[in-house]
Amino acid sequence: MSFTLHPRLEADSIFLGQLPLCQLRLINDSRYPWLLLVPAQADRVEITDLSAEDYQQLWSEVRQVSEGLQSLFQPDKLNVATLGNLVPQLHLHVIARFKTDATWPGPVWGQGEAVAYTQDELKSLLPELRGLFFQ
Amino acid sequence: MSFTLHPRLEADSIFLGQLPLCQLRLINDSRYPWLLLVPAQADRVEITDLSAEDYQQLWSEVRQVSEGLQSLFQPDKLNVATLGNLVPQLHLHVIARFKTDATWPGPVWGQGEAVAYTQDELKSLLPELRGLFFQ
Repeated sequence: MSFTLHPRLEADSIFLGQLPLCQLRLINDSRYPWLLLVPAQADRVEITDLSAEDYQQLWSEVRQVSEGLQSLFQPDKLNVATLGNLVPQLHLHVIARFKTDATWPGPVWGQGEAVAYTQDELKSLLPELRGLFFQ
Repeated sequence: MSFTLHPRLEADSIFLGQLPLCQLRLINDSRYPWLLLVPAQADRVEITDLSAEDYQQLWSEVRQVSEGLQSLFQPDKLNVATLGNLVPQLHLHVIARFKTDATWPGPVWGQGEAVAYTQDELKSLLPELRGLFFQ
């Protein structure tokens, strides 16, 4: 069975590019620099569903994305998580958190409403993120 | 500088044993089977503070702990996360979640009050967990 992105992840985020294992996507919520990694493999729910090789690749990509967010945004803290209680398709969150952000020090999930980026914001942010991870 | 466990982590959890990299601890909250991995190295805050070798070891231990929780509890979902917005010392959560648990499908952090295990509960659970990961 081929990989199809879950419609909820599709609706909530913007495609940035394809890493060796994962689709890298930007969550469309301007309250936080918030990236999503989705292993492009059908029927993965838990990290333990990945082969040993893909598991290592996943965390290698998480490190690359984490270091990219750190260099671009200098956050106070990174939050890295895979929950999936609502959307079963395996996906990883890497979020740059700031002591001044909307829900600090709480977690970001289920807190208030997402604030979509404006077209102007995306016009500068998307090339910046794509340049960081895909050049 | 040598490793000293953060007092908040010490107070909230019970030592299970020492893996090659991490202290493995049980969060003292009977609402969820909830383990904590704390790399036993001073001054680690972000996963990106780890050497490449330790980073790989960390995720190898997370996989081992995840598979152990799955075999013991058959959860509906694993939640795996490193947040650290309140306690800066690097620590990883691996939580067995159930559709019937106290805060499903929300995340566990900052929700209600922890319900400490009774001595009777610990008398059976601690040997079970230690047997799973340290024999």
